[in-house]
Amino acid sequence: MHRDPIPDLLYTALRDRFGERFSQGESVRLQHGRDESVHAPEPPDAVVFAQSTEDVAEVVRLCRQHHVPIIAYGAGSSVEGHLLAVEGGISIDLSGMNQVLAIHADDLDATVQAGVTRKQLNEALKGTGLFFPIDPGADASLGGMAATRASGTNAVRYGTMRENVMAMTAVLADGQIIRTGSRAKKSSAGYDLTRLLVGSEGTLGIITELTVKLYPLPEAISAAVCPFTTVDDAVNTVIRTIQMGIPVARIELLDALTLTAINRFSKTQLPERPTLFFEFHGTEASAQEQAERVQEIAHEFGGQQFEWATRPEDRTRLWQARHDAYFACLQMKPASRAFPTDVCVPISRLSECIHATNADIAQVSIPVMLFGHVGDGNFHLVVLIDPNNQQEIEQAEWINERVVERALAMEGTCTGEHGIGLGKRKFMVKEHGEEAVAVMRTIKQALDPLGLLNPGKILPN
Amino acid sequence: MHRDPIPDLLYTALRDRFGERFSQGESVRLQHGRDESVHAPEPPDAVVFAQSTEDVAEVVRLCRQHHVPIIAYGAGSSVEGHLLAVEGGISIDLSGMNQVLAIHADDLDATVQAGVTRKQLNEALKGTGLFFPIDPGADASLGGMAATRASGTNAVRYGTMRENVMAMTAVLADGQIIRTGSRAKKSSAGYDLTRLLVGSEGTLGIITELTVKLYPLPEAISAAVCPFTTVDDAVNTVIRTIQMGIPVARIELLDALTLTAINRFSKTQLPERPTLFFEFHGTEASAQEQAERVQEIAHEFGGQQFEWATRPEDRTRLWQARHDAYFACLQMKPASRAFPTDVCVPISRLSECIHATNADIAQVSIPVMLFGHVGDGNFHLVVLIDPNNQQEIEQAEWINERVVERALAMEGTCTGEHGIGLGKRKFMVKEHGEEAVAVMRTIKQALDPLGLLNPGKILPN
Repeated sequence: MHRDPIPDLLYTALRDRFGERFSQGESVRLQHGRDESVHAPEPPDAVVFAQSTEDVAEVVRLCRQHHVPIIAYGAGSSVEGHLLAVEGGISIDLSGMNQVLAIHADDLDATVQAGVTRKQLNEALKGTGLFFPIDPGADASLGGMAATRASGTNAVRYGTMRENVMAMTAVLADGQIIRTGSRAKKSSAGYDLTRLLVGSEGTLGIITELTVKLYPLPEAISAAVCPFTTVDDAVNTVIRTIQMGIPVARIELLDALTLTAINRFSKTQLPERPTLFFEFHGTEASAQEQAERVQEIAHEFGGQQFEWATRPEDRTRLWQARHDAYFACLQMKPASRAFPTDVCVPISRLSECIHATNADIAQVSIPVMLFGHVGDGNFHLVVLIDPNNQQEIEQAEWINERVVERALAMEGTCTGEHGIGLGKRKFMVKEHGEEAVAVMRTIKQALDPLGLLNPGKILPN
Repeated sequence: MHRDPIPDLLYTALRDRFGERFSQGESVRLQHGRDESVHAPEPPDAVVFAQSTEDVAEVVRLCRQHHVPIIAYGAGSSVEGHLLAVEGGISIDLSGMNQVLAIHADDLDATVQAGVTRKQLNEALKGTGLFFPIDPGADASLGGMAATRASGTNAVRYGTMRENVMAMTAVLADGQIIRTGSRAKKSSAGYDLTRLLVGSEGTLGIITELTVKLYPLPEAISAAVCPFTTVDDAVNTVIRTIQMGIPVARIELLDALTLTAINRFSKTQLPERPTLFFEFHGTEASAQEQAERVQEIAHEFGGQQFEWATRPEDRTRLWQARHDAYFACLQMKPASRAFPTDVCVPISRLSECIHATNADIAQVSIPVMLFGHVGDGNFHLVVLIDPNNQQEIEQAEWINERVVERALAMEGTCTGEHGIGLGKRKFMVKEHGEEAVAVMRTIKQALDPLGLLNPGKILPN
């Protein structure tokens, strides 16, 4: 569904208000109508580069007068088509809202504008002894990370954006500005609007500022890789580690094919077998104790070759390789696009889930790599397709549906951290039931009766 | 506002459906119309003792036909008048819904009916090596704890109900049953209905089942008390401990008068000075390391007399004394009622907040004790009043308003863990702003258009 053409009156008003920060240029529009997903680009009709909450509110008010959709844009790193202007409209680019507004080192929190990226925040924290741990791989904007309830490699210890956003400023569909939450670590004061906006993908409000939790930099950090003979052995090591309550900071599984991709891309010489990447945070003594315990567990499951990276540069290289896994995989098939899956299951079902998924993978002709944040029961398949080959697209969709159905049957979720966007709407009813999806619709309808905020996302048609 | 009299047709329908599980008896009504708060009881018109989600849905459907309010009742331990039938109606007693439905030891979670209490769950967990940490003092029902976003002594390490409820079954105002969340540790699949219901105090839905996180029992637990010369010294010890990222399981402050009350009530001989109660969880080595570090910090602030309780029975006695602090305080003034306050502030402001509050306390004639979960910046005043003495009530209200205004000025909250209920509605706009409260109202209106679910709570008139 595409709406009526945008009235010239709106363009004029936006141009008057924003001058050069308003653009209808084709390349700007195209850039704002695509993300890292396989979905075909859908450019917005125009882009406004916002510099303040008031800018955002003004765009929303103007668009509302003319019933024109509004899509928030952060770093463009989403992977489920969140940014695509499927009904046209105005994209609000928040990347210019990149001020770190306050660092409260004593309270372990910071308030930032939504366009600040996670790396930028960590740069700003240098010298404070603190860091912001949530790390989805891409250098995403914090507003975008909140909007998609992002997490990543060290959620197993530090939680996701759900646990780490304390407060927000947001612009609602009627152009009102609200503040949610506070800097208190906990509160029982009414409905949790912060958590309602976290994960709402720009469909209930546009996050313009947020206060996030910070953590003391660990005194000691150590990292290691350990190859296993089978995926089962690796997964069982993970399960035992979590069940023993060992507070690992990161515990990531990569399958053999992903290791092949990494070795080619990152010029590493890691054994091309199912491998766990670990990171331990703590005092010298406790980080060492954690590492020893995990090593014992890994031994039980045949993981003997722990390779340690204790120097910061080795650690960085190791984790860079892990973060580059996605791009490394892409190189395995020239001119391919990645179709990522993102299920998360209770950890007791992880082995079974991966096993059955590998049986599916064996049935298709396209390359599929598996890796993920297995400490949380979350893993991805990177299915490489030629976007012009219908058969490959169908194979990828078949694998995705299979793994989602399996995860849901195991009391899991269709998306651990990527969000619903466009591609996973079809699984919403299956995951939540008609009744819960109806409640989501009621909330959307109540807060955005004209359906202007990022239409076509999250809720199925 | 009291509504129209309940139609006989509804009574007949409820009696037909629930037989002896329906009661209009005066003592039953009175018991269901009071909690631990200072608010005068407001009995419901009748009580239904539910045994299943379907029972709850049936009551809601019948009440809805007749536009009659519905109030969920768990253990009756709330402290802000949550249970009071201020507009009459039917109380649904969920205490008979006390089945532990599933313990998934491998996944560290359990699914329970809403009437299961936290102690009952921990009994059921014996032998699994796991425990449920959230401990608000009272043996509250887990449904009630979720509904008020409760926490307590070890939230500093394990979080609150916000972080520990994974999934729910709830009955909505239209009698529909929804399931929210899943057993996956994280998910980005749509609006966070679980977190919307947590803390909604029975005004958006009635929680009938919930899945909560469990934790491995620590290999080692140690506890200690340490008196300080001043509250400032104690608070500074707390602040430093948190800022260093030491993962204390509990760190509680009690003021000198509270210690006097405890010594009288619990027959202890603790120094009657500002005192910190600590608990450390970990491996033998890490619990010891945490304790040593905290001891060093305390030393810096003049806290020299660490007294350890390492045997389980000593630890239990110590924490029992802490948990009895509220009742011990009540004994300090015969026939008194306690007027509790519950602010939570950023930890950097805690010292200043307590200081200024003590200056207020010095201005009134009634006894006021101060204690709380200071690791989170949350503390309570127990203001003892003769409920028939208007002057004392006014003094208590004055202190409460002063401490709330102060907390809000410090970017804190009027309630860290008790909830809004009746008594704190007047602070909602001050804390959240007109705009955010309007959003809460919109959500309430959308999900409960007839205003039948626990009317008169959370939202100001």
